[in-house]
Amino acid sequence: MAEFDLIELIRARCAIARDDVRLGIGDDAALLAVPAGQLLATSTDTLVAGVHFPAQTTPYDIGWKSLAVNLSDLAAMGSTPAWATLALTLPESDARWVADFADGFAALAREYKLALVGGDTTQGPLSITVTIHGFVPDGTALLRSGARVGDAVYVTGTPGDAAAGLRCLDKNDDDADRLLSAPAGMRESLIERLNRPTPRVAQGLALRGHATACIDVSDGLLADLSHICKASGTGAEIDVDSLPSSSALLALFDDESRRTFQLCGGDDYELCFTATETGAANLLGDLARSGCAATRIGRIVAEPGVRVHDSAGRAVMLPRAGWEHFV
Amino acid sequence: MAEFDLIELIRARCAIARDDVRLGIGDDAALLAVPAGQLLATSTDTLVAGVHFPAQTTPYDIGWKSLAVNLSDLAAMGSTPAWATLALTLPESDARWVADFADGFAALAREYKLALVGGDTTQGPLSITVTIHGFVPDGTALLRSGARVGDAVYVTGTPGDAAAGLRCLDKNDDDADRLLSAPAGMRESLIERLNRPTPRVAQGLALRGHATACIDVSDGLLADLSHICKASGTGAEIDVDSLPSSSALLALFDDESRRTFQLCGGDDYELCFTATETGAANLLGDLARSGCAATRIGRIVAEPGVRVHDSAGRAVMLPRAGWEHFV
Repeated sequence: MAEFDLIELIRARCAIARDDVRLGIGDDAALLAVPAGQLLATSTDTLVAGVHFPAQTTPYDIGWKSLAVNLSDLAAMGSTPAWATLALTLPESDARWVADFADGFAALAREYKLALVGGDTTQGPLSITVTIHGFVPDGTALLRSGARVGDAVYVTGTPGDAAAGLRCLDKNDDDADRLLSAPAGMRESLIERLNRPTPRVAQGLALRGHATACIDVSDGLLADLSHICKASGTGAEIDVDSLPSSSALLALFDDESRRTFQLCGGDDYELCFTATETGAANLLGDLARSGCAATRIGRIVAEPGVRVHDSAGRAVMLPRAGWEHFV
Repeated sequence: MAEFDLIELIRARCAIARDDVRLGIGDDAALLAVPAGQLLATSTDTLVAGVHFPAQTTPYDIGWKSLAVNLSDLAAMGSTPAWATLALTLPESDARWVADFADGFAALAREYKLALVGGDTTQGPLSITVTIHGFVPDGTALLRSGARVGDAVYVTGTPGDAAAGLRCLDKNDDDADRLLSAPAGMRESLIERLNRPTPRVAQGLALRGHATACIDVSDGLLADLSHICKASGTGAEIDVDSLPSSSALLALFDDESRRTFQLCGGDDYELCFTATETGAANLLGDLARSGCAATRIGRIVAEPGVRVHDSAGRAVMLPRAGWEHFV
């Protein structure tokens, strides 16, 4: 199947009409209209097979995730999704694979009325780069740099599930047999969190005007919170006992593994944000009603760096290795 | 070297200040202001090592070319370049390689005051995806779909040079020894056209309001002209003897090879456009003064498909295989 047929196949499965797409796929560039008073928010993320998803991941899940991780970046800015371009590098021209990939991508695109406006398909080792575009009213974006000493630190959802899901997929792990015999649905719910993360778009929009800083948790809670601290010129303290845990994570892993997944595991795509007491009072109810509550997990302090303690105030040391992207 | 250091290295070498970049590299998304009355033009292109450039290509040239091919898409729309994002997948974290790559990218970015506003670096087989953004006043973009029967067909510059340059790099070619002993500078000038293509941005802007349709020549003149014809519901006839040739191409290759390179070779990044007699009269002088003249090479006809004849009107048959991208 030739390049143009593959593009047509993707285009047909991702067709979403938007008035602001003046010209979509099919010319040298897309022509797009940004509404007056809005800034364009744009971000790009690449997924490489074997690095950002396990080799056995289904094409549907790869399509879903390649858009989800980009939607998550817009969510962390408090931006409304609008358009995306897709660069798909494939080892071979496989129409069935591309159709399944496009279905996974389109399922999530439809939720946000996001239009695929351009793309490129090339031959090479499997890799997907999505560039996403959204809108945010001038002056309202959520930045990493706005955290202030005394702000509380929050996280949406239940971090650690995706890293636990990755562990569940590891057939060579010491725990593999035990995890495979876990009660029905538990292992699967963690793997689903790895393969089909839910970008917190509605939550990011709810944070606008209330949160002081925000980031999405892609590299791990500690690593991503440290980006907020660095950009804001602050530090942070986290109470490990306050971290919200899913029932599957609690049931399948001991405290040490759970803490490592929650603090150092990436790929959750939850939002980590900071807010004043007043700001938080205004938004926590909204977040809970959105279907994804946020939990207070710590506070912003003056001393640089992110430190972790337990509910009794004892310092907690954690392994960091093995969870960071190489580059 | 970690991901964040690589991104900082690229950012530092590509630093260009623009008032419309409200927030550049360093947060979850860039925040950008599109001027009132302008549409956003966006396009994405991936280069894969060994597919879109020979494995021995220098990192500087890869950086140059990865931006050039995207600038060429904006040129073909008559759009003014503004911003780009860069997704760079590297087999290993090599600061020297990345610095050279960034220098090649930045050399071309500076020419157009284009700002690098975001990126992602990942580990994997070498591949580069650039997504480019530009502006075009609403209603003035050059589309593929505007060619009409009776329009003349033009091409800028001297097509075929890049394909000839690729042949010059092929050590297994029957002609390799002869080409290596060519007069100084000839072989190199063709290879330069392959490795450091010049996007025809100024020419694309000059075409606005005059050309009826436009495309950039990335897949080959016949293939790309056929895209114009398909989008416009027309056909075209090309006079092979009217094709403009560089002196190096004329000196180093026989007529048959030259014609194949010119009609079927990709990677030239010249513009192929159509215009009425009146439209052409207004712009050919402007193009010549821009440093890149355009040559009339044929005409738009009603019968679908692209046909090639010589100056005596005899049909010319040409091989097509071997010049198209796999996907």
